[in-house]
Amino acid sequence: MSKFWSPFVKTLVPYVPGEQPKLSKLVKLNTNENPYGPSPKALAAMQAEIGDTLRLYPDPNGERLKQAVAEYYGVQPAQVFVGNGSDEVLAHAFHGLFQHGKPLLFPDVTYSFYPVYCGLYGIDYEAIALDDEFQIDVADYSRPNGGIIFPNPNAPTGRVLALAAIERLLQANPDSVVLVDEAYIDFGGETAIALVDRYPNLLVTQTLSKSRSLAGLRVGLAVGHPDLIEALERIKNSFNSYPLDRIAIAGAAAAFEDREYFEQTCRQVIASRDSVTEALTALGFAVLPSAANFIFACHPAHDAAALAAALREDGVIVRHFKLPRIDQYLRITIGTTEHNQALLDSLAKILG
Amino acid sequence: MSKFWSPFVKTLVPYVPGEQPKLSKLVKLNTNENPYGPSPKALAAMQAEIGDTLRLYPDPNGERLKQAVAEYYGVQPAQVFVGNGSDEVLAHAFHGLFQHGKPLLFPDVTYSFYPVYCGLYGIDYEAIALDDEFQIDVADYSRPNGGIIFPNPNAPTGRVLALAAIERLLQANPDSVVLVDEAYIDFGGETAIALVDRYPNLLVTQTLSKSRSLAGLRVGLAVGHPDLIEALERIKNSFNSYPLDRIAIAGAAAAFEDREYFEQTCRQVIASRDSVTEALTALGFAVLPSAANFIFACHPAHDAAALAAALREDGVIVRHFKLPRIDQYLRITIGTTEHNQALLDSLAKILG
Repeated sequence: MSKFWSPFVKTLVPYVPGEQPKLSKLVKLNTNENPYGPSPKALAAMQAEIGDTLRLYPDPNGERLKQAVAEYYGVQPAQVFVGNGSDEVLAHAFHGLFQHGKPLLFPDVTYSFYPVYCGLYGIDYEAIALDDEFQIDVADYSRPNGGIIFPNPNAPTGRVLALAAIERLLQANPDSVVLVDEAYIDFGGETAIALVDRYPNLLVTQTLSKSRSLAGLRVGLAVGHPDLIEALERIKNSFNSYPLDRIAIAGAAAAFEDREYFEQTCRQVIASRDSVTEALTALGFAVLPSAANFIFACHPAHDAAALAAALREDGVIVRHFKLPRIDQYLRITIGTTEHNQALLDSLAKILG
Repeated sequence: MSKFWSPFVKTLVPYVPGEQPKLSKLVKLNTNENPYGPSPKALAAMQAEIGDTLRLYPDPNGERLKQAVAEYYGVQPAQVFVGNGSDEVLAHAFHGLFQHGKPLLFPDVTYSFYPVYCGLYGIDYEAIALDDEFQIDVADYSRPNGGIIFPNPNAPTGRVLALAAIERLLQANPDSVVLVDEAYIDFGGETAIALVDRYPNLLVTQTLSKSRSLAGLRVGLAVGHPDLIEALERIKNSFNSYPLDRIAIAGAAAAFEDREYFEQTCRQVIASRDSVTEALTALGFAVLPSAANFIFACHPAHDAAALAAALREDGVIVRHFKLPRIDQYLRITIGTTEHNQALLDSLAKILG
């Protein structure tokens, strides 16, 4: 604490990301990275940017990437915003779209960055309880609000909400922005981007860190009505003209253009998720139905924190949240076949 | 404008960066990029990051880069903050260190992003007039303030302030953060980082976009007392956990480690600046003494906007600001010998 700080800094409670261990021998199933590497075409596009032209600023608007996203989803580039990871895109959305003097609504069990953004921008919020099976009931969101946000599929539960329910939510809240955070959508959900032409209050965010295997590159995006995109652009252009570097723009655009690799790796992750779910169930775990690249599981006879610690001893890292309602759950990223097997072998040993 | 925007978004006046033309045949002397490419060692370090590990998140703290900067300047890593270009670093500093209910002070002729940040974070400011020779008189900054910021060398003038004057400013304002924005320091100034151990109210920002030829990579940094750095870290960790990607961390660290290439290219730019200054003077221009990689010049007989337009017609882009006091000046980046000659040839033709 320091007299030089702006007063609000004292009260900030920053987000704590999952551990990025320096030891590469660990089986790392804690931050929902993709077990497969990026598209070879994306790698080639990044290679091509490594050279003397790095002395020049990038395109401040990232047009090449906006074009690739727009083509992929059949929207206009003016409906697309790009940024330094979906975390930056979300930050600008909180700042530019959720300060309305009424509470923002989001689920009680959700991405733990949301209350952090509220602290950063002085936004009140209400956490709406998920039902007993950790599902969102959209009827619970029909109360005065300055915006609504939730991940779909939700994190860390993995549970997905159907487009029809999202549409009811949009219709019930025509004066609020509804932000659907689709970090994990490609592993089993249906994107709400299909609805952006009909609902001017819908903003959809996505990341290239999960289904496109580029967590190390920091690229995220939003799709919505051009008026919502303009708010994000105004803030971005009042904050940092060039959030995406030359390599990131090229690599991300190429990743969107390589549909075949993307679809194939998503299918592999989904198949692995099904077999890991089956194996964990056989070990006595209760596993929530997941539409993401992770599963959320608890064991009736074993404390989750103790299990996480024992796995860690064995060189396997999973994520455990010391939070109400979910402190008996483990969030386990789907890894390669080899890493998944290491997890299952270790758990079989621990459970005896 | 939209009912969905947070109210302040309506009043934002975003920064407009210099043009990044798509035609590569232009002689681009408008955004102060380095005429020489990045260090070959930095390029090699970036190459080495292009691969499967991009599926993994980067180190959220960028320790490798902090270590390289700390070693270069003989400070501790806890005195170093790193971010997505110095624009992002400056944004966090405005947010976290300048909201004190008193006006921020900065020169009337300066980096035009400063008032934009003030708009973004609701900070009042007073623009303090430079003297008739476009110099900062630190005595003018002894008035109530919530912080002080200026570039050194100043932009777009190129004029440098001596460390002794900066020290007087720090002593006269012990309760305010004094931010010295050293984007251009390596082309002729003396870094105020030499003072950070003695002044807890001093924050120094730098960029890798100019002297380290990495505008396309988006890396900036701040050095100061660990308490000031902590404010920036708290904001960064409430905004975006990983603003620097794996390639940027590796490339920027390697650029700091390659002193020889850095020093040699800085010397070449300085030598070119001297010869361009001489040639422009011979053409009748009044050229301000510059300690940066650009010069600020006016011609007594020719309108600056008309000159900029005529140069553009000829394929040479320079920057002209339609702003009070400086609308008869051109800001001209120092380019390669070939590009500088193209500029001079074109001007000789235009001036007839």
